[in-house]
Amino acid sequence: MFKSQIQKPTLLIDEATVRRNIRKIAVKLKASGIDFRPHFKTHQSIVIGSWFREEGITKITVSSADMALYFMGGYWEDITIAFPANIREINKYNFIAERISLHLLVEDIVKLRFLLKKLTHPVNFWIEIDSGEKRSGIDIASNDEIITLITLIQNSDKHRFAGLLNHTGNTYQENSEAEIKRIFESAKQKMVSLSEIIRDRIGTETGISMGDTPSATHIESFEKITELRPGNFVFYDLMQWSSGVCSADEIGVAVAAPVISDYTVRSEVLIYCGSVHLSKEYIVHEGRKIFGIPVILKQDKWVHFPCSAYLKSISQEHGVLHFNGDCRLKPGDIIGILPVHSCLTVDMYHEYLSLEGKRIKKFQSLTN
Amino acid sequence: MFKSQIQKPTLLIDEATVRRNIRKIAVKLKASGIDFRPHFKTHQSIVIGSWFREEGITKITVSSADMALYFMGGYWEDITIAFPANIREINKYNFIAERISLHLLVEDIVKLRFLLKKLTHPVNFWIEIDSGEKRSGIDIASNDEIITLITLIQNSDKHRFAGLLNHTGNTYQENSEAEIKRIFESAKQKMVSLSEIIRDRIGTETGISMGDTPSATHIESFEKITELRPGNFVFYDLMQWSSGVCSADEIGVAVAAPVISDYTVRSEVLIYCGSVHLSKEYIVHEGRKIFGIPVILKQDKWVHFPCSAYLKSISQEHGVLHFNGDCRLKPGDIIGILPVHSCLTVDMYHEYLSLEGKRIKKFQSLTN
Repeated sequence: MFKSQIQKPTLLIDEATVRRNIRKIAVKLKASGIDFRPHFKTHQSIVIGSWFREEGITKITVSSADMALYFMGGYWEDITIAFPANIREINKYNFIAERISLHLLVEDIVKLRFLLKKLTHPVNFWIEIDSGEKRSGIDIASNDEIITLITLIQNSDKHRFAGLLNHTGNTYQENSEAEIKRIFESAKQKMVSLSEIIRDRIGTETGISMGDTPSATHIESFEKITELRPGNFVFYDLMQWSSGVCSADEIGVAVAAPVISDYTVRSEVLIYCGSVHLSKEYIVHEGRKIFGIPVILKQDKWVHFPCSAYLKSISQEHGVLHFNGDCRLKPGDIIGILPVHSCLTVDMYHEYLSLEGKRIKKFQSLTN
Repeated sequence: MFKSQIQKPTLLIDEATVRRNIRKIAVKLKASGIDFRPHFKTHQSIVIGSWFREEGITKITVSSADMALYFMGGYWEDITIAFPANIREINKYNFIAERISLHLLVEDIVKLRFLLKKLTHPVNFWIEIDSGEKRSGIDIASNDEIITLITLIQNSDKHRFAGLLNHTGNTYQENSEAEIKRIFESAKQKMVSLSEIIRDRIGTETGISMGDTPSATHIESFEKITELRPGNFVFYDLMQWSSGVCSADEIGVAVAAPVISDYTVRSEVLIYCGSVHLSKEYIVHEGRKIFGIPVILKQDKWVHFPCSAYLKSISQEHGVLHFNGDCRLKPGDIIGILPVHSCLTVDMYHEYLSLEGKRIKKFQSLTN
């Protein structure tokens, strides 16, 4: 029984749910005829990556050079680092590009010139386009600069221009399916128009890479798009649940937390599960800040609480669970906490514990 | 030169500043005649712990049984785990208590009975008192229950009742020295009154353990208190700076971040430094949400930016730095980011890099 192993906050994974989440999006995108290049920054695990491989996935996305090196060690041979190229990591790019098909993002001419000079092996270049999020990428209206970047890549004999890539991360702030669709369609339309301008001006066909979990879940037609790169859908989380992107039953990870003390007098229970175990993210649900929602851990699944309960506040190691009604928790019990933002929660751990008691290793981002 | 080692977000420590911070509080508390039992959850490092030992510190506080085991490995022989006892970790408590002087927190009669039955070696018990924060501890007005707990401990022949302990964490929400002092004095007065009630009713003398960084910094007299347990002061951070508890020059850690792209057109620079490198904490300063403040990294120190600049938004790996005026940053440069909450930032890393290029290992909380 997996619960007997737990003494402190532990990252749990429900393999059956996660495999269902993977299959659902893989089947949908396959039917749409576009490439599915899932973002592995959410799960960060070679073992979980193998569950994607079983669904026919061969191309992946990661968020750092170190994560690309890790997955290269798991025999992935076509990897996009979906973060603008960092010239400080040129030696890692060369190491990777010598061995597998590496895709890099560029959006800056000075940086591109540096890379073209220093890269020792062929890479695939995507130009990151900012279609309105104002996080990273070259502004979508900068046609001349974009064409200059493409021309520089094409003039190098070594490298390939793969296409235009963007991230409609603003869909994560939306709570309605209609608004998520509107943002995605608007960004897609702008990307398609830009690719047509490029074809008209220099005769180059451009791939289009987009992708985020809300769009991958809600959008039905991906016409004119080359590939999609969602990541969070593998686990989903309370943020996606509160935006209507997933159901609570589709959430694939939870943090197992020991119950420390029973403060029934104030309808609260202290649990061992704080911001170093969950991250400081919260959702506002029914007018309240919520840092997590508890579930009861059964033999091979987790189920909803019989009473209405939520994680009301967290500090470094403390979590205060508020409940209405009788929750019947006592010191030493183990409950699960569904995370607000699974990517940030998972990033903090070195491994998962499956409901079958298997330990699943993952990448450790801040090790040197 | 330490900067040449940096390719990705890296936790920097300014040893000279940190040693000054330690000395300042150690000298002050020594002069006050109370015990200084610093909380090591902020730095989590045996090496940095040794800097405290050089100031005469022999007793420490940690936030978990695993952290106690780590510091026991660094020859610390008097450790308080300042988190209510977790009955799931009874075997760790027994392992530690067999070897060194262990202090545990209790606030629940069922749990105390369990511990008294299962502990194989003597421990020092503190009763955690909630003097108004409503996070953990037994309510300060519950005199009868508190006396029952004390009596149970005293009736065991093995263990020692050490005293009453609380945490005035509500000082962290305050921005004025006067308000911080008022909260601390009010909590102290309540703790002293409670100890007098206990003496009158059962003739027991009780120690009083309090402590948080804002109080340790601002309060001058600690009369009637046995010990203080501040932790954050070792590094301070922007939260403490914005509350007037420290100056910017006293902040002892920064995250070194590569500059990725120059978005001068929108007065922004993309840096490689996101929520997995800093945590999601922010302060509101001059009406703006701020996730960090940049500093220029010099040979052996960091200095303020010539222009007004701040970290405006972060996602998993991306940081968007906004500046007014000419910041002259280019891809490949390395800057420092002062963290909003040093405890959470530091917790994510496995080691520090000192400005002299030394790597300093630390505890890794979520490894099994």
